[in-house]
Amino acid sequence: MTGKVNAFYAQSGGVTAVINASACGVIQTARENKDRIGKVLAGRNGILGALTEELIDTSRESARAIEGLRSTPSGAFGSCRYKLKSIEENEREYHRLIEVFKAHNIGYFFYNGGGDSQDTANKVSQLGRTLGYPITCIGIPKTVDNDLPYTDACPGFGSVAKYVAVSTREAALDVASMCETSTKVFILEVMGRHAGWIAAAAGLAQEHPEDAPHIILLPEVPFRKTAFLKKVKDTVRAHGYCVIVVSEGAKYRDGTFLADAGGKDAFGHTQLGGVAPTIAQMVKDNLGYKYHWAVADYLQRAARHVASKTDVDQAYALGAAAVKFALAGKNAVMPTIVRKSDKPYRWSIGEAKLSRVANVEKTLPKSYISKDGFGITAAARRYLEPLIAGEDYPKYKNGLPQYVQLKKVLVKKKLPEFKV
Amino acid sequence: MTGKVNAFYAQSGGVTAVINASACGVIQTARENKDRIGKVLAGRNGILGALTEELIDTSRESARAIEGLRSTPSGAFGSCRYKLKSIEENEREYHRLIEVFKAHNIGYFFYNGGGDSQDTANKVSQLGRTLGYPITCIGIPKTVDNDLPYTDACPGFGSVAKYVAVSTREAALDVASMCETSTKVFILEVMGRHAGWIAAAAGLAQEHPEDAPHIILLPEVPFRKTAFLKKVKDTVRAHGYCVIVVSEGAKYRDGTFLADAGGKDAFGHTQLGGVAPTIAQMVKDNLGYKYHWAVADYLQRAARHVASKTDVDQAYALGAAAVKFALAGKNAVMPTIVRKSDKPYRWSIGEAKLSRVANVEKTLPKSYISKDGFGITAAARRYLEPLIAGEDYPKYKNGLPQYVQLKKVLVKKKLPEFKV
Repeated sequence: MTGKVNAFYAQSGGVTAVINASACGVIQTARENKDRIGKVLAGRNGILGALTEELIDTSRESARAIEGLRSTPSGAFGSCRYKLKSIEENEREYHRLIEVFKAHNIGYFFYNGGGDSQDTANKVSQLGRTLGYPITCIGIPKTVDNDLPYTDACPGFGSVAKYVAVSTREAALDVASMCETSTKVFILEVMGRHAGWIAAAAGLAQEHPEDAPHIILLPEVPFRKTAFLKKVKDTVRAHGYCVIVVSEGAKYRDGTFLADAGGKDAFGHTQLGGVAPTIAQMVKDNLGYKYHWAVADYLQRAARHVASKTDVDQAYALGAAAVKFALAGKNAVMPTIVRKSDKPYRWSIGEAKLSRVANVEKTLPKSYISKDGFGITAAARRYLEPLIAGEDYPKYKNGLPQYVQLKKVLVKKKLPEFKV
Repeated sequence: MTGKVNAFYAQSGGVTAVINASACGVIQTARENKDRIGKVLAGRNGILGALTEELIDTSRESARAIEGLRSTPSGAFGSCRYKLKSIEENEREYHRLIEVFKAHNIGYFFYNGGGDSQDTANKVSQLGRTLGYPITCIGIPKTVDNDLPYTDACPGFGSVAKYVAVSTREAALDVASMCETSTKVFILEVMGRHAGWIAAAAGLAQEHPEDAPHIILLPEVPFRKTAFLKKVKDTVRAHGYCVIVVSEGAKYRDGTFLADAGGKDAFGHTQLGGVAPTIAQMVKDNLGYKYHWAVADYLQRAARHVASKTDVDQAYALGAAAVKFALAGKNAVMPTIVRKSDKPYRWSIGEAKLSRVANVEKTLPKSYISKDGFGITAAARRYLEPLIAGEDYPKYKNGLPQYVQLKKVLVKKKLPEFKV
């Protein structure tokens, strides 16, 4: 492949407040390199768009719309929960991808997602070589769960962390001001299926030891009912109220989740939800306190209105870096964030091999969890604080943030239909 | 009573993102009138502080701290859910209030709350007269539920309305971008026990008819399961996903709430919560769609980080007006917001008699509810839009909003203890 080729970009898995900032970084950087990159074609609904040949022609979007992506949450091109199987199990799909890439002169594959997606990008890079259509594959990290290895943080995490810390501080003030005659225990359920990074970030709301959150329930720490109830009781006695932040993935020692909504998603993960009311009931039954609970659900990962500037900047930089990496001849790698110092926070772009990133889950290290298992340590604060730093407000009109809606014009199909 | 007297100020009932802005208006305006008003003494935990003689000396707070109240959510002096009974039922409490006011040379009574509180303020004004200790009683409106009569809006409502509209818009983008392979139905539960103003405000997120929210469930419209499920199904078929905003007070024709958490609060209101999961289960059981749900709970009324500038300005203005009313010799009244025009939104301060405000609940008028009962009309938008207009961000430090914590120094007690 020589001369000018097109690029493919897709968003994968759960969307975030800043994944579109990465898309913005990819597209703007590609536009700055028009001599070497033709069009950026985005998969409609992620990798599905590549399989079904539904490719969004981003060259039809105005510079202003692309710039608007930087401050628009969710996946502007559509995302999907669709994990390609191994090449042995479903070679047909990988062949199809290569066919579509050939048909549309695509020489660069940018895949914006979590561990599963980095795995897919890695496989595509291998298969392209095998099939004689070498394609440059660059992963772009994204996950609110912050569970990818090798990068200081994952884009999407800093903003959900900020949302959770801000919301915890605000709700705690509310509870504190009324606890004498009303609610004594408040429970906020946050995301984090296997890693407690998001719940841990709520700990940043605490300035003094007596401040909320008083209890954080992490998936990394097996739930001990007796110790938990004692801590709730002691906290209410000492401060008049108790604020609890619980990760959706909180579980007992035997691995049973505290709450399990029953279903499973396309990746085979159990669909969770409802641990907050479970905890509330437990508190009521055992201690009799009046409670309130909140489940932030999608509100937390979509909350672009209170995004972290660090997060937005890093998301953009990683998208831009992916294109630069590709142009520099790198392949099967993912740009990463390398922390240079905590205070002031300084970072640069590094890289990690996709083969090493794929399917590795980074959980909270023990040194970040307080001795009693219900809080975070100074080391955790040192790590987390810079990630929520800075505000990056979207523009507002009539009291509401103005988020862009793209035209999403598809390029003409050239291949026969393909059944997914 | 002649010369310089002190003022009593208390926060009552559920707190909001802007009730402290009203406190700021009261205290700053009193400080500007030092020739006539001595100290502003604030009830610790609302009216309870007057009964127990726990009076916070606001003169001990710095000008900077008082200014900080303008951008601090919750009740900085503590609030309570404690409704004084009728004079016949509990004259003892009213006598105690007058005793405390006498002991601390209090000539002004500012009571910041909803309908119940305006009722209390009215009774205190009457009893003071009867007992020969005439006290000037001014109510200051506050309720996220927006259910007070005579005022264009209630401080606290505009900010929760903005939070709900912003969150709905953000979460809807999230759902839309993934609906092809993931969640098809998203449900957000919001506050509003008897009036659907908050849920209605979510309708502002909708710019085009196909936009979310697709269904709003209001307490004013009896829930019809069949029509609801049909609308969900039609919406998913037409747009691929369906966003539902449900008021905690949504109920069947016979008055049964869709969800009932069981307990009752001190005002005898049923403690609600959990209608979102109830609706989700109904959708799953009948239509089989994958769902997600969120319950914003206290997060919505504490969300000072995304407060409405209109709301903050009005909250402050009403606090300031209360003091001006008192100094002008008015009594047993409440300052109100009078709408002069919709576009541009212009408003001024009016007044209403406490005797007429007390215990009247203003629900959504029929003209604000769409024909099918699942949405809002253009008239509703015209009313609601200005209330969420403008941003008024708090200051941030280390990525988190800096909310003030007062010293809350109590004045020395002069009376024997009183059991509440």
